[in-house]
Amino acid sequence: MKINDIKLGEINPKLSTGFQATNISKAIEIIERMKKEDATIFLTFTSNMVASGLRGLITELCKRKFVDVIITAGGSLDHDIIRSEKDYLLGDFVMNDTELHKKQINRIGNILVPNECYEYLELFMAEIFKELKGKTVSPSEMAKKIGEKGKQDSFLYWCAKNDIPVFCPGITDSAIGLQTYFFKQQNKDFVIDVTKDMGRLAQMALDAEKSGGIVLGGGISKHHAIGVNLLRGGFDYAVYVTTASPWDGSLSGARTSEGISWGKIKEQANHVTVDCDATIAFPLIMAPILGD
Amino acid sequence: MKINDIKLGEINPKLSTGFQATNISKAIEIIERMKKEDATIFLTFTSNMVASGLRGLITELCKRKFVDVIITAGGSLDHDIIRSEKDYLLGDFVMNDTELHKKQINRIGNILVPNECYEYLELFMAEIFKELKGKTVSPSEMAKKIGEKGKQDSFLYWCAKNDIPVFCPGITDSAIGLQTYFFKQQNKDFVIDVTKDMGRLAQMALDAEKSGGIVLGGGISKHHAIGVNLLRGGFDYAVYVTTASPWDGSLSGARTSEGISWGKIKEQANHVTVDCDATIAFPLIMAPILGD
Amino acid sequence: MKINDIKLGEINPKLSTGFQATNISKAIEIIERMKKEDATIFLTFTSNMVASGLRGLITELCKRKFVDVIITAGGSLDHDIIRSEKDYLLGDFVMNDTELHKKQINRIGNILVPNECYEYLELFMAEIFKELKGKTVSPSEMAKKIGEKGKQDSFLYWCAKNDIPVFCPGITDSAIGLQTYFFKQQNKDFVIDVTKDMGRLAQMALDAEKSGGIVLGGGISKHHAIGVNLLRGGFDYAVYVTTASPWDGSLSGARTSEGISWGKIKEQANHVTVDCDATIAFPLIMAPILGD
Amino acid sequence: MKINDIKLGEINPKLSTGFQATNISKAIEIIERMKKEDATIFLTFTSNMVASGLRGLITELCKRKFVDVIITAGGSLDHDIIRSEKDYLLGDFVMNDTELHKKQINRIGNILVPNECYEYLELFMAEIFKELKGKTVSPSEMAKKIGEKGKQDSFLYWCAKNDIPVFCPGITDSAIGLQTYFFKQQNKDFVIDVTKDMGRLAQMALDAEKSGGIVLGGGISKHHAIGVNLLRGGFDYAVYVTTASPWDGSLSGARTSEGISWGKIKEQANHVTVDCDATIAFPLIMAPILGD
Repeated sequence: MKINDIKLGEINPKLSTGFQATNISKAIEIIERMKKEDATIFLTFTSNMVASGLRGLITELCKRKFVDVIITAGGSLDHDIIRSEKDYLLGDFVMNDTELHKKQINRIGNILVPNECYEYLELFMAEIFKELKGKTVSPSEMAKKIGEKGKQDSFLYWCAKNDIPVFCPGITDSAIGLQTYFFKQQNKDFVIDVTKDMGRLAQMALDAEKSGGIVLGGGISKHHAIGVNLLRGGFDYAVYVTTASPWDGSLSGARTSEGISWGKIKEQANHVTVDCDATIAFPLIMAPILGD
Repeated sequence: MKINDIKLGEINPKLSTGFQATNISKAIEIIERMKKEDATIFLTFTSNMVASGLRGLITELCKRKFVDVIITAGGSLDHDIIRSEKDYLLGDFVMNDTELHKKQINRIGNILVPNECYEYLELFMAEIFKELKGKTVSPSEMAKKIGEKGKQDSFLYWCAKNDIPVFCPGITDSAIGLQTYFFKQQNKDFVIDVTKDMGRLAQMALDAEKSGGIVLGGGISKHHAIGVNLLRGGFDYAVYVTTASPWDGSLSGARTSEGISWGKIKEQANHVTVDCDATIAFPLIMAPILGD
Repeated sequence: MKINDIKLGEINPKLSTGFQATNISKAIEIIERMKKEDATIFLTFTSNMVASGLRGLITELCKRKFVDVIITAGGSLDHDIIRSEKDYLLGDFVMNDTELHKKQINRIGNILVPNECYEYLELFMAEIFKELKGKTVSPSEMAKKIGEKGKQDSFLYWCAKNDIPVFCPGITDSAIGLQTYFFKQQNKDFVIDVTKDMGRLAQMALDAEKSGGIVLGGGISKHHAIGVNLLRGGFDYAVYVTTASPWDGSLSGARTSEGISWGKIKEQANHVTVDCDATIAFPLIMAPILGD
Repeated sequence: MKINDIKLGEINPKLSTGFQATNISKAIEIIERMKKEDATIFLTFTSNMVASGLRGLITELCKRKFVDVIITAGGSLDHDIIRSEKDYLLGDFVMNDTELHKKQINRIGNILVPNECYEYLELFMAEIFKELKGKTVSPSEMAKKIGEKGKQDSFLYWCAKNDIPVFCPGITDSAIGLQTYFFKQQNKDFVIDVTKDMGRLAQMALDAEKSGGIVLGGGISKHHAIGVNLLRGGFDYAVYVTTASPWDGSLSGARTSEGISWGKIKEQANHVTVDCDATIAFPLIMAPILGD
């Protein structure tokens, strides 16, 4: 029986708290099922999550080969590189941003990123670019290159090692993207060809006997995962974790149900949308699944 | 050092996940402090929470005398009475509400309440009203009366037993309120005097050496708790759990910080606003504190 | 044809922008219909709206007898009284609340209320209380008393003049409520009987051939309006304007559809939930209806 | 005096409604100022907005050369192409998505897109691809190509005609992107080089004496606009319209203030974040500015 077919009146103790606690339980159940069915798992997340403590959990999932494909925003690469070397700090959601600017500290919600972090990124990327002169690369090739030079706390490191492709269709929208701008000025023949990744990503969707999506937050990463699953008739399993609202028609706030109309999620899929900040919801969902 | 004074750049491992995970940690720390300081603890919640699995946790807190004052909406009394006798069911946030109506099933988010539940409430209240003929009562006196007839899974039962007053300034806005309307038609001399509770509630705020607020959701319960603490210069400790946004100036979405401007929360208070559904956040916050 | 029956594929130019713009159009259409059908119109709002510029629009609706019943929170009475005499100021959603507190300025979102406003309220209420000694009053009687002493920019003034009852089931949760606490200390025989209003409110719902709800924001006002319409089988027309989310099972975020399951809104009702701050949405909705 | 310096206690009648109505007024004022100062205006929006009635307003702004740069998601190109030829329909936010899927109708919030729309897109793009064989193009070059074949109701048409570059860093995440995947299978030498656009975009930011951002919704479009303005020390003027919350550290919910810490918005900028669905807020903001 799929999780969405629970009948009116049935009482499932695991689900019985109601409201979003029920959806956390459903998410656990669905991810357990996708794992049990050996589904190809697409994990997507926005870059702020890599700036947060979720980076550790994401790295763990890549290390354990729990996921098969990652789709994320360019900023995730930035943060993953930097945090192997530099510390981010704890701030507050409301601070004097003018003062922070004078102190060269950048704010992401209640997380603080000193400017020197980006100086480190520049140095790191300079090494990467040396090897890319005159080449035409795809974003996933760049992500792999970065992972190969990474440290063990880096999710890109484990993705490179475990051959988990990291797709990043909007890669130039990031600090790395700004670096490519500087690099390109002297290296006109350097190319990031985003069409190059489409084939590989599409093939993974097409080859999957079952496919499952764990979609944290919205944006391009979310849409790219469900978009490519259209090619195979949709996800068999889908868990969205979001704080966005559907009432403005945004993709970020769209429920799993909307995906069914498109064929991005199957009619008979198990699916749930958890309305919660992923820093709370995702560890809560994964803890019983990882089981330690 | 108060939790709100954590300095820029300081790294507190308990808080270091960022975003709302940090605020969950802060909430734990603040509630531990209010308990350690033997603060008078005001717990407030909206009535949907008593329809959810949070009722069990709320009951536990009353049983253990963890809290000293409860302020809640009328519907909380309804649900607490009914659920000692009847089961609510699990549904979904999107259902065919016309069909539910035809089946006499009422929906609260993804929780379903069959009409027969309210028939039981009517019978229960008939017994209560027998003892109230000709009387002028306050909402807290009614809540106590109900608790005295309650069962052990009822928070009102434990409040009555442990002398924890349950304030309910908007009591007539509930199913019980509709029952008072029918009762009053034959019993013109029955009176619920809401001013009667003001003295007792105010005295508890004034007598408190330290006071702490655990405020789940918004509405009249939230405001009444912070409003009465104005009399003593504000809460020393305050934890809000909310899903509402502050951008429309609503009280429900107001952050703890706004309360400081009013003197409803002290300038030097420890305070945090956790942006999360309470069915997820509140068990997560209380688990390490209750410690079992 | 009811607005909720618009068929798949039908294109109504007035509604065709999509997303919430469509819901603004639906709200206009529904309110026009309730007016045309001569429905008894219940207007509800939270107290922050009376602190905002919406007070002028609310007053206008009362002056024109556009609405028949008002249900609101206690704070609405506070703000209506004060603003006939004192100015509120414009601030910002993020301010130094400690500094504001030192300056004795209270913040409601981006609206600032100097403490002296409440000193005026105290004086005003002292006059009211003089006439209430030894009496047992209902909230609507108190609201009328206040309106009778009001000025022409006050919605309570026009309600008193036009015999529009103002129900306020949670009246003690307000600055007026705190004043009743002080007054009651010396006047034990002063009583606010909240059951007294139930009959009058219920009768208005029962007498209505058609009933319509214009529900701005959530909380006790929203619930009381839909709750009493249960007695007559639900609203025929309902417009909710809210910023709250339904995903936590809160009443404030509940869509009109949920009300149908309860019989608080009729199965065949015309209804819409507009997801928008009322300071933007309500003037936009009412402008074409008031037509000037 | 900049709009963010309005002093405590100052009453500006245009701003005096409070809450988000105030922010609508601020947005109008700020956009008027950016226009008056002849700022280079960056307009960004998510693709759902082009599926809505906002497309007409966006087209108008391009036709009048009101904006200088557009940054948007790939789906915006999809919808702009399709809607010159096909109609989208009005649905509801809650529909039977399985049934819609069977009828081959895709849902975006309350907007419905029949599958045949995408068949048209395929034909349209086939013509475009014919001219791109063997070429290495940037997203803005593709957008221009599309615009050159467009109709007068298309914003891409007017952008092409008026030489307003349309940047689309995540172009492959779209229906066009899926078409490029099919095209690439037979045309390995077709390349979309996303680094190619960085120089042109950066130069526009660097060349601007003043720069202003009108940022509708979040995602990659929002970030790309503020990210590139970092190169010039930040926007002088910024208006965000969003429904997302900042409490999860997401870029989509980030306020303008957060951008100041990064230098993506200047310390002395005029800026405001309007919390509202853009289908309501943006026409309301632009109407008095376009003045007709």
